[in-house]
Amino acid sequence: MSKGKVVLAYSGGLDTSCILVWLKEQGYDVITYLANIGQDEDFEAARKKAESLGAKKVFIEDLRTEFVEDFIWPAVQANAVYEDRYLLGTAVARPCIARRQVEIARREGAQYVSHGATGKGNDQIRFELTCYALYPEVKIIAPWRIPEFYNRFRGRTDLMEYARSRAPADLYLMTKNPEDSPNVQDVLEIEFKKGVPVKVTNMNDGISKNTALDVFSYLNEIGGKHGVGRIDIVENRFIGMKSRGIYETPGGTVLLKAHLDIETFTMDKEVRRIKQGLGIKFSELVYNGFWYSPECNFVRHCIAKSQENVEGKVQLSVLKGQVYILGRESPKSLYNEELVSMDVQGDYDPCDASGFIRINAVRLREHHRLQGLSSTKQ
Amino acid sequence: MSKGKVVLAYSGGLDTSCILVWLKEQGYDVITYLANIGQDEDFEAARKKAESLGAKKVFIEDLRTEFVEDFIWPAVQANAVYEDRYLLGTAVARPCIARRQVEIARREGAQYVSHGATGKGNDQIRFELTCYALYPEVKIIAPWRIPEFYNRFRGRTDLMEYARSRAPADLYLMTKNPEDSPNVQDVLEIEFKKGVPVKVTNMNDGISKNTALDVFSYLNEIGGKHGVGRIDIVENRFIGMKSRGIYETPGGTVLLKAHLDIETFTMDKEVRRIKQGLGIKFSELVYNGFWYSPECNFVRHCIAKSQENVEGKVQLSVLKGQVYILGRESPKSLYNEELVSMDVQGDYDPCDASGFIRINAVRLREHHRLQGLSSTKQ
Amino acid sequence: MSKGKVVLAYSGGLDTSCILVWLKEQGYDVITYLANIGQDEDFEAARKKAESLGAKKVFIEDLRTEFVEDFIWPAVQANAVYEDRYLLGTAVARPCIARRQVEIARREGAQYVSHGATGKGNDQIRFELTCYALYPEVKIIAPWRIPEFYNRFRGRTDLMEYARSRAPADLYLMTKNPEDSPNVQDVLEIEFKKGVPVKVTNMNDGISKNTALDVFSYLNEIGGKHGVGRIDIVENRFIGMKSRGIYETPGGTVLLKAHLDIETFTMDKEVRRIKQGLGIKFSELVYNGFWYSPECNFVRHCIAKSQENVEGKVQLSVLKGQVYILGRESPKSLYNEELVSMDVQGDYDPCDASGFIRINAVRLREHHRLQGLSSTKQ
Amino acid sequence: MSKGKVVLAYSGGLDTSCILVWLKEQGYDVITYLANIGQDEDFEAARKKAESLGAKKVFIEDLRTEFVEDFIWPAVQANAVYEDRYLLGTAVARPCIARRQVEIARREGAQYVSHGATGKGNDQIRFELTCYALYPEVKIIAPWRIPEFYNRFRGRTDLMEYARSRAPADLYLMTKNPEDSPNVQDVLEIEFKKGVPVKVTNMNDGISKNTALDVFSYLNEIGGKHGVGRIDIVENRFIGMKSRGIYETPGGTVLLKAHLDIETFTMDKEVRRIKQGLGIKFSELVYNGFWYSPECNFVRHCIAKSQENVEGKVQLSVLKGQVYILGRESPKSLYNEELVSMDVQGDYDPCDASGFIRINAVRLREHHRLQGLSSTKQ
Repeated sequence: MSKGKVVLAYSGGLDTSCILVWLKEQGYDVITYLANIGQDEDFEAARKKAESLGAKKVFIEDLRTEFVEDFIWPAVQANAVYEDRYLLGTAVARPCIARRQVEIARREGAQYVSHGATGKGNDQIRFELTCYALYPEVKIIAPWRIPEFYNRFRGRTDLMEYARSRAPADLYLMTKNPEDSPNVQDVLEIEFKKGVPVKVTNMNDGISKNTALDVFSYLNEIGGKHGVGRIDIVENRFIGMKSRGIYETPGGTVLLKAHLDIETFTMDKEVRRIKQGLGIKFSELVYNGFWYSPECNFVRHCIAKSQENVEGKVQLSVLKGQVYILGRESPKSLYNEELVSMDVQGDYDPCDASGFIRINAVRLREHHRLQGLSSTKQ
Repeated sequence: MSKGKVVLAYSGGLDTSCILVWLKEQGYDVITYLANIGQDEDFEAARKKAESLGAKKVFIEDLRTEFVEDFIWPAVQANAVYEDRYLLGTAVARPCIARRQVEIARREGAQYVSHGATGKGNDQIRFELTCYALYPEVKIIAPWRIPEFYNRFRGRTDLMEYARSRAPADLYLMTKNPEDSPNVQDVLEIEFKKGVPVKVTNMNDGISKNTALDVFSYLNEIGGKHGVGRIDIVENRFIGMKSRGIYETPGGTVLLKAHLDIETFTMDKEVRRIKQGLGIKFSELVYNGFWYSPECNFVRHCIAKSQENVEGKVQLSVLKGQVYILGRESPKSLYNEELVSMDVQGDYDPCDASGFIRINAVRLREHHRLQGLSSTKQ
Repeated sequence: MSKGKVVLAYSGGLDTSCILVWLKEQGYDVITYLANIGQDEDFEAARKKAESLGAKKVFIEDLRTEFVEDFIWPAVQANAVYEDRYLLGTAVARPCIARRQVEIARREGAQYVSHGATGKGNDQIRFELTCYALYPEVKIIAPWRIPEFYNRFRGRTDLMEYARSRAPADLYLMTKNPEDSPNVQDVLEIEFKKGVPVKVTNMNDGISKNTALDVFSYLNEIGGKHGVGRIDIVENRFIGMKSRGIYETPGGTVLLKAHLDIETFTMDKEVRRIKQGLGIKFSELVYNGFWYSPECNFVRHCIAKSQENVEGKVQLSVLKGQVYILGRESPKSLYNEELVSMDVQGDYDPCDASGFIRINAVRLREHHRLQGLSSTKQ
Repeated sequence: MSKGKVVLAYSGGLDTSCILVWLKEQGYDVITYLANIGQDEDFEAARKKAESLGAKKVFIEDLRTEFVEDFIWPAVQANAVYEDRYLLGTAVARPCIARRQVEIARREGAQYVSHGATGKGNDQIRFELTCYALYPEVKIIAPWRIPEFYNRFRGRTDLMEYARSRAPADLYLMTKNPEDSPNVQDVLEIEFKKGVPVKVTNMNDGISKNTALDVFSYLNEIGGKHGVGRIDIVENRFIGMKSRGIYETPGGTVLLKAHLDIETFTMDKEVRRIKQGLGIKFSELVYNGFWYSPECNFVRHCIAKSQENVEGKVQLSVLKGQVYILGRESPKSLYNEELVSMDVQGDYDPCDASGFIRINAVRLREHHRLQGLSSTKQ
């Protein structure tokens, strides 16, 4: 008698293969699901492996376009950076992957979903909060939190973990070591509409991309070629531990710099300030796994609203791990060369600045007066 | 009959020389004051020029150490960055310079102070708010806001401005072009106590510095050699204009990266979050000229409090415009390798994570329930 | 020869009558404009007075409905309170009044607008920022900041001010003294949709109102009858002075309490938290005169978005200056009696709370561990 | 064989008596602990009951003074209000009670602590986070989350809960119904130093109190007599449920109003704004049980710093559930009657306001210009 159907987020690797077999042993009908979000993977080999291990059904889903459009683009609009440094790669991928998994579970009549994330990490939370939010009645099997499972397989984890942690040179899959990267820069022009890139052109060779997926892939390629976006950080996990993370986000880093530039160029100063706070909030929510929450919906809506005029082109160079902004132009720019020029007075009367400063000083002078009085007394 | 004494912030350049002469013409006794905050300048030539133009007294003040200790260090503690990009170089220098100017004015019995900042910029505000805060009765003469002055000298400004703006290649004084910078990295170790650097050691050659001024100068030197900290941005001035700024902050950039790293390593996650908000506030206040304000005092105090345990060493490499964090260590680290390890369960029970996640999902599931109900009805 | 047309915000009182005459003397064609936003005023007498004093045209505009719908309702949605206490009455009225004034000025071809607000207050700013935002080329004549005017009329101001300031007993126009108010409460039910009241019913006598203007007027009447919403505060003006203010906001106070209640009942906790911050920002912007600014537009949009499900009925009693919430109901409520009940376990497993708490404690215990280590060493 | 010692937070009531007996049955040596934080209770009867039920030791601790000084006073300084309405009574008491419980557990060599808080509430969290923070190795027994316990005793809970929930008229222990309260107001003068009350004087009868405990008790008495501080709200629990709460905080409400007044009178506007944000954060932390956390320590320190000049006297009347501020005075006031007066120009030049407004309008006019351009194009 089957205990029911479970949709397992399957990677093709050792640990989720162990889980597949173990779930079968426990009496579940296992449906494996592997999402293609652009990683370098032999999907057909994974399919065969899942089938050979006893999966009842195997789903391999190409989510690349929806990943870029529905998840990465909002992060670009938000200038999403967690704790001032981490560009949220995996954190943004999880809700995308889990959303489809839940759709499959509903369609296949599966009551259960399962995953291979460990019990101390963030990914378990991102995965499960998405599942609960989109499929509240779902039951989640997290083997790395089940003693019978992890006591039995701990040895293997140790091994895998060992393999992973002792090989830092191989850690980076997308980016070259900046020391070994080319000595000749690429110059790119990225065009934005509503705060998202709609086109990238390489000024060196004229290559141009204009679909979401192509633009993002190309920026990953060029950024990677020049070693852009590597970091080695200690970060604060949601569960309250500090952990070390080594990340590479080549395309994301190029986009962050370009978006920051076109945004400041086209957005009112005070709107920007409020939006900056919302972007920090967004980053925390996404890092902590709350993509599908009322508050993240709300914040995304507000941020998207702020991007209506974030439009124009940014020119930048990429070289030796660095991105340099060279210039920008926009039909929606609030930059007024004449207004700011020292040569032209225009509509601006410098005398107004005297009043402005003196009024701003009213409070400071009063404060000083009070301090003087206080010290007189003491 | 003299109109009284005026202390003029004098640079030795054309524009403040014009102001010196003009103030004399207007009947003031002019005392010039030139602050040494580390810029490359022939101070003795400036003294002679001021004297030859009729200054009654000439003050040349070495503020380098107090600039680093009293102004740059608090900015390092705050991770001060304006609008996500600008590291506040000039903004931090102004209150330092004006503070001494006001001291001289009081000591010399001068009722007036004067400066050469233009009428559309931020520096006039930073300068004058400091003066009003520390010397509330002072009278300020800002010639670039006085029509008789600027109408007469506008031609010269145009010229100077022209000279300045048409020479971007020469704009950078401290940093090499990363393309021309060495192919061999410098590896530095920076030691922090209470959130400020107390020592830097170059691991390549063993050179070491341990006074505030030496540490900062050395980081400027190494950062500059490798082309670190150049930016070309559009920023929002306090007075509501957007303007283009080209800046170089080699030492500041190295310190920002190193401080962010040691801070995250040693500071509690939630303290960090609150402190991040205070740091953004601090940056806005300093940019806008409010260093000497009750709120900036308050924020500085709070930030300093947060730094009590920010202590330890950061290793980093500098190459081709980039700063890479290599590692960090601290006696006050909150990073607990055993706690975070996947090999060791320790005091942490992975089952707790299930409860944690399910409680976090209570709200999300309720929200989904409500949406389901609503849509059923409609 | 006329200097041109000026539209004067005219109150019918002594001071704006002086301004009318003075503007005529200066050579302007004066168009007076008097807004009816619900104040107790003899508008026809004011018209005659303006005409007799030489106004070329007289506009009396009924703005009551648009004042409530376009200005008060957004403030209700925001729970707008300045510095924790002031409900922003006048601050909300200014942009409403100035908006129409600018429309009249454009229509009449007037280059100038004028007003009777004093030179130390907030109203001059609220008035003028609205004018500049909606009619950037406008020229503003503010007589109380023009020495020839205020030196001549200062005596009269003194007099008026004296009259105003020495008569606190008469200060309150809308509210009874709570000591003299009825001993029998009124019980009201207010119905909200999208965060604004759409209907009020008096449960005592069945009286019911359902247009924006009628609802607001009725709440002013009932609130006023029971002495609700009087405050005597010191507040911080935008220009940096502290000033004493005595205000009455009977209807606004009832609405604030009712809206807070239905909002918390229907809005997700974390959305509420973000929205609370936006509401504080909104209050500061409105107080400071920035209703018509990009950031206030943005914040209003976000707040309105948050109100989509703020729907339902609130029952409350009004008595002796107090508003007591008696109950609330909503088709969009997130309150789930079964979930929260101690009798019913339902879908909620109390054991999950153990995990939730222990994970929340990870960080606190680590912190304690570190402090222990530190103190051991020292 | 004993399983070890457990310190039980004992109330003397039915539910913790059940727990006492059950813990004994489970094989623990039970030490009961009852904190006196000012509640109306027969402590000696509780002692006898605990002894008769088999407690090995009974501790009854008078925490009243430390509760007021260490817990309520910081909440007063913070203007602590959760979700705009709840004054945090119980939330502030929990860490006070649990702190002593942990001290007793350490002193008595008990490895375990226990409490009677239910599994859906906030109090379990407040209690346990305090214990984990101050005694990280402690083991917590929460019977209402243990199935063997709650399945057995559920009937009784239902009963108790029923009793509690069906008796709203008796809910209020400290406050009279405002309808039944006196018709004659009490007028109080409260004196503050560093943001906390140091003295209260009743102007009607001259009664005066000047220790922390006496001041707070007296304000509870007077507030209670006039029916001040009753609320009926829906609130958001930490665990993500909404629940209804009926609270009375007579003394706290009087203090909140008085403290807000003296604070605004003596604190710089911008410091106040930053501190307001910290106060909201503090309230959330305390509500959620994080009194003993690094971030709450940090926030408390910052808030205390902000209170250095919050000093002076506030006069207020209390009547029929309302608190009216009548006036305030302070040696540290930033209120400058001359500066704000319309009669006296003093050091303030009204012309400065023109410049101030025009500079503030620069951005608004640019925004309008851009919108005009955009609409022209489309």
